[in-house]
Amino acid sequence: MRALRFDGSLKLVDDAPIPRREGEALVEVICAGICNTDLEIVRGYAGFRGVLGHEFVGRVIESPDAKQIGCRVVGEINAGCGVCRLCRAGDARHCPARTVLGIKDRDGAFADFLSLPAHNLLEVPDTLSDEEAVFAEPLAAALNILDQVEIAPTARVAVIGDGKLAQLIIRVMAQSGCALTVIGKHAEKLALAEAVGAHCLCLQNTSDERAIEDWLRRANLLLAFDVVIEISGSPTGLPMALQLVRPRGIVVLKSTHHGQTGLSLTAVVVNEVTIVGSRCGRLATALDWLANQTIDVRPFITEKLAIEDAIEAFAKATRPDSLKVLLRVSPSS
Amino acid sequence: MRALRFDGSLKLVDDAPIPRREGEALVEVICAGICNTDLEIVRGYAGFRGVLGHEFVGRVIESPDAKQIGCRVVGEINAGCGVCRLCRAGDARHCPARTVLGIKDRDGAFADFLSLPAHNLLEVPDTLSDEEAVFAEPLAAALNILDQVEIAPTARVAVIGDGKLAQLIIRVMAQSGCALTVIGKHAEKLALAEAVGAHCLCLQNTSDERAIEDWLRRANLLLAFDVVIEISGSPTGLPMALQLVRPRGIVVLKSTHHGQTGLSLTAVVVNEVTIVGSRCGRLATALDWLANQTIDVRPFITEKLAIEDAIEAFAKATRPDSLKVLLRVSPSS
Repeated sequence: MRALRFDGSLKLVDDAPIPRREGEALVEVICAGICNTDLEIVRGYAGFRGVLGHEFVGRVIESPDAKQIGCRVVGEINAGCGVCRLCRAGDARHCPARTVLGIKDRDGAFADFLSLPAHNLLEVPDTLSDEEAVFAEPLAAALNILDQVEIAPTARVAVIGDGKLAQLIIRVMAQSGCALTVIGKHAEKLALAEAVGAHCLCLQNTSDERAIEDWLRRANLLLAFDVVIEISGSPTGLPMALQLVRPRGIVVLKSTHHGQTGLSLTAVVVNEVTIVGSRCGRLATALDWLANQTIDVRPFITEKLAIEDAIEAFAKATRPDSLKVLLRVSPSS
Repeated sequence: MRALRFDGSLKLVDDAPIPRREGEALVEVICAGICNTDLEIVRGYAGFRGVLGHEFVGRVIESPDAKQIGCRVVGEINAGCGVCRLCRAGDARHCPARTVLGIKDRDGAFADFLSLPAHNLLEVPDTLSDEEAVFAEPLAAALNILDQVEIAPTARVAVIGDGKLAQLIIRVMAQSGCALTVIGKHAEKLALAEAVGAHCLCLQNTSDERAIEDWLRRANLLLAFDVVIEISGSPTGLPMALQLVRPRGIVVLKSTHHGQTGLSLTAVVVNEVTIVGSRCGRLATALDWLANQTIDVRPFITEKLAIEDAIEAFAKATRPDSLKVLLRVSPSS
């Protein structure tokens, strides 16, 4: 089958073996999305080798659960061992022996076929297009914040970042009715946030912490927010979040990136800030939001390319003006 | 009056002006305690210049609240502006314009007299000795954890650190009935934790992260704790806490130190850890615990010296085998 592999470099192959795993379902991929995590893996994050990709919609070809066969599905990307304490408590997402589609010890979705446990798959409502359904996984990651942190309608919330996942988080936050500020570096991406009522600030492209602090002070943003969501993907994001959040406020940390962050932790202690790490979320809720049209993800699709053009698609996904780049793998029906 | 000043170096003076502040109470200091924050200030933390000291018991000499005069008191060390949004909401501790006794823009307790707002002072029950009462401030800081994080009796809790504040935290945690593990570097200090039922591990004196991780793995401690309290005072403490805490667990950050921590934040996001910064606490609760003998602080007193010997007392407080060093300033009655 065709597959986009990363083995120190990106390579499109057409002779990858079909990934049948015992007791699991086999899914023919229809469409897949390129995520920042994919780009970070190519930069060395997570040490993954294999077929990339974890945002997908596909059709079930084989399954131990016969009634799944033929269904159009999205999938929970974490597959736990099933026997450890966490798995038995229903938290396979954090199983220490888990595999993760296209991220950890399991080939991913940028391929004709993928394998996942049958219970990881959720049927997609017919009303949703493939292009919308492929957003279920990142939208679940955005919605996960609501499972972790209470966002009151009176809350002052800042989002640092204006990229793919940031845009979904901004729409989720806008739904809560909170007073929303977005700090980004790309005017045309910030315009999408402004369209849902966010107050947007375009930050100069600098990593000079002093210059950033001066800028935040002049904009009256220091210690001004109840909740700050850090999804910039930059090592300067968390230090900035700690300058923005009020005493006893909450910083939600969404960015993962390769390497270390140099950080003065004094502000965390002195201001008694809470930092909440946040990763994946519940696909069922995300499908509900998409099916109910609570959120419209179509403005975030930059381009759709065929899997044959996956290398070019990756190059496009890394451009500063890019949002979601989709890979069309097979026709929907 | 006599005072121990820090102006880039420690100096004992006998001609410091008596610190009368308009509308505040004047307190004659009886006894004061040396805290790690004092030692950190001498190393450059917080940029403070002036009279050090914030743990004290004293007697009110002058006060706008006449019934306070003559009372033996301890004091809330943060004094807010009284008019900002945080102060009006009752959180003067986080007022951005606050002064802090012996830490920020306010002369401290290593002196014959100190000044604090009358409403910052709490009367000490007669049953408490001066030496016990002086622990009210650090004990409040330890108890603050219970206001921030729920510690279930079934919780697996680790404390990283075996110093002065760590010992108080260990006793507070031991009261909760949780399964308590303490990781420290000083056998004789760990023995105090063992005395209240903690499982203690003496870490080799190394800052090599790989060696520490191997050691934790062999001891079966990786991802093993619901709550990890980091009070080591060392930049290696938080990285270790992130190795110990289970997915979706809580790290309480108590250490403040000068300088930056190099940190990989990936574990925070991937394991969805919550980091809670924790500073001061409520003195009234601490006085209750001391008066009810819920906690016995006397084992933690390493030595009592007269204020004339304050420089020597500081030297003693920095020794690895030292716990609380007290300064006797004036007789109790």
